[in-house]
Amino acid sequence: MTASFIPPKRILMGPGPSDVPQRVLDAMARPTIGHLDPAFVELMEQIKSMLRMAFQTENALTFPVSAPGSAGMEMCFVNLVEPGDKVIVCRNGVFGGRMLENVKRTGGVPVIVDDAWGTPVDPQKVRDAFKANPDAKILAFVHAETSTGAQSDGEALGKIAQAFGALTIMDCVTSLAGTPLYMDKWGIDAAYSGSQKCLSCTPGLSPVSFSDRAIERIKARTTPVQSWFLDLNLVLGYWQSSGKRTYHHTAPINPMYGLHEALVILEEEGLENAWARHRAMHEKLKAGLEAMGLKYVVEASARLPQLNSIYVPEGVDEAAIRARLLNEFSLEIGAGLGDMAGKIWRIGLMGYSAKQENVDYCLKAFKAYLP
Amino acid sequence: MTASFIPPKRILMGPGPSDVPQRVLDAMARPTIGHLDPAFVELMEQIKSMLRMAFQTENALTFPVSAPGSAGMEMCFVNLVEPGDKVIVCRNGVFGGRMLENVKRTGGVPVIVDDAWGTPVDPQKVRDAFKANPDAKILAFVHAETSTGAQSDGEALGKIAQAFGALTIMDCVTSLAGTPLYMDKWGIDAAYSGSQKCLSCTPGLSPVSFSDRAIERIKARTTPVQSWFLDLNLVLGYWQSSGKRTYHHTAPINPMYGLHEALVILEEEGLENAWARHRAMHEKLKAGLEAMGLKYVVEASARLPQLNSIYVPEGVDEAAIRARLLNEFSLEIGAGLGDMAGKIWRIGLMGYSAKQENVDYCLKAFKAYLP
Repeated sequence: MTASFIPPKRILMGPGPSDVPQRVLDAMARPTIGHLDPAFVELMEQIKSMLRMAFQTENALTFPVSAPGSAGMEMCFVNLVEPGDKVIVCRNGVFGGRMLENVKRTGGVPVIVDDAWGTPVDPQKVRDAFKANPDAKILAFVHAETSTGAQSDGEALGKIAQAFGALTIMDCVTSLAGTPLYMDKWGIDAAYSGSQKCLSCTPGLSPVSFSDRAIERIKARTTPVQSWFLDLNLVLGYWQSSGKRTYHHTAPINPMYGLHEALVILEEEGLENAWARHRAMHEKLKAGLEAMGLKYVVEASARLPQLNSIYVPEGVDEAAIRARLLNEFSLEIGAGLGDMAGKIWRIGLMGYSAKQENVDYCLKAFKAYLP
Repeated sequence: MTASFIPPKRILMGPGPSDVPQRVLDAMARPTIGHLDPAFVELMEQIKSMLRMAFQTENALTFPVSAPGSAGMEMCFVNLVEPGDKVIVCRNGVFGGRMLENVKRTGGVPVIVDDAWGTPVDPQKVRDAFKANPDAKILAFVHAETSTGAQSDGEALGKIAQAFGALTIMDCVTSLAGTPLYMDKWGIDAAYSGSQKCLSCTPGLSPVSFSDRAIERIKARTTPVQSWFLDLNLVLGYWQSSGKRTYHHTAPINPMYGLHEALVILEEEGLENAWARHRAMHEKLKAGLEAMGLKYVVEASARLPQLNSIYVPEGVDEAAIRARLLNEFSLEIGAGLGDMAGKIWRIGLMGYSAKQENVDYCLKAFKAYLP
């Protein structure tokens, strides 16, 4: 017989999931109702409205995909890219590379703009790519590269795409609610995020938002969307409030309760206050890490406050330290991905994890192991 | 300011979600841990093992997809069907139709076997379809049609596909843990289900299982899988235990706690006892409904115990009755879908909802409104 699973209590300071407030956990445990219940429809409307605040958008089509962030990414690409469409993809980390994979699998023709891992996307290279490819229909970039901790200039990149008449897809999995992001002001047409980063909900949902221009593009498609589950033409019938709602799939009811509560907490704090808190906690953590002689991977101007990438000091076994942090301090931090595996640590200060108590605890734990 | 969402307490006797036991809800609220935490890996292994019991399979590749049942369906089709592959699709309700959509979107060539809604798939028609299409590579059918309440003969259909050298994809969203199902004995190669039916977990996860023959087929593909999120070649690196686990996506941690607890409860009861309980509760509900003069849609030999489809009596406004059941009894039952909209009700007796208390309550509520 298998016993019930009682998870250990962790302090989550990796690249996500972040610590989940008890209020969100409590919400997850409320009684399940049906996905067509009028009360659930009301919940959905409130979630959509609060997500608009988080994305800083008026987009009607703003909602959580019933799956993790990678499905939100795929929803953007399978709906907006048709076979043969040229897409400029910026790649300065793992998630730019994943965007490229998505372009290929939808039959798009990628134009790759590469920047070194740990640096932001260079707007000049993007401008040059558009000049060389004036028929490019979409620009895709990652606002906050979770694999490196580098932040790109969403406003500059959005404006360039607009100047060349292209749509923009932006990955804001790690930036939403953690660092300034203005979807409408920047002219972003499609954005996707995750519930488990700066929103501090449990993982499994992917908030997305689509501009009217994006919807027009989808409606004008001449080929069917390759995914049934992610086809916005079908999803729209379920998530749009006006008129009769059509059954598409069964939404994850209880995780939606959790996301709702996480957004209520964000509303209570205020979005700008949340951004300022992430910044303030980052400054404190940085001061402590640098006092120990640790060096940041990303230069200050492009550094994400909510994801602190630092080099592993020479001669230190990074995996051994992470294991000790987990086993002796119950503290989770992240390893490097891809090219940066073994070379860096990633310390998250996301959502509910971005608090003084966690900063102090993390610094204390590091001091216990570093020379 | 938005207030926290407090859902009404419902009795869920629709086509899913079903009532969720408090133990599962409590599990959902346990502290979130990381998706790469050794404790989470252990949880995954236990879930995989208990799912094998539920599917009655030895398949190593048995796990929950991080999204609802429609994503589980899509995972089966995008991985097993290559452009040009001939697929025999049985359509006797909404979900057979959805399978057909999936075949088309993967570039497969569908051969449709139609049966009337409310009847099971006719094995002779399937045999004839194979004779007329000996090059068909896959047979796809729905074991338990949630839209009608009809059960098809999984064993007979699985054996026919094997005789013609084809793989079989089976939808068991509504049957898993509710009615006898033997994946290995029947020779089924790919099966998908949902967490929110007879497992009585919250919605959002899709248990799937793939035979070694299915994995060989996937490995022998000459075209890439069109979905990144659902590509089993990538998912395998995350869900397979042996060796180094690769990051693919962030799993929905807390819903996995819920699924684990739901499976522990199933293990405690015993799978065959759970099947018997569904059958016994169905007999009681049926006796009560028939005593009121209500007629079943599906004939007794193909009737699903966990989904009771009954005709709305002449002159009765079905939507008004459903609304009163919800508003005055807080009881959810289901409407008809597609061709059966307005003509039938669907009363679920799934998982935790399949109990004497619910049967009595449902009959009492119906008596209050029916002549």
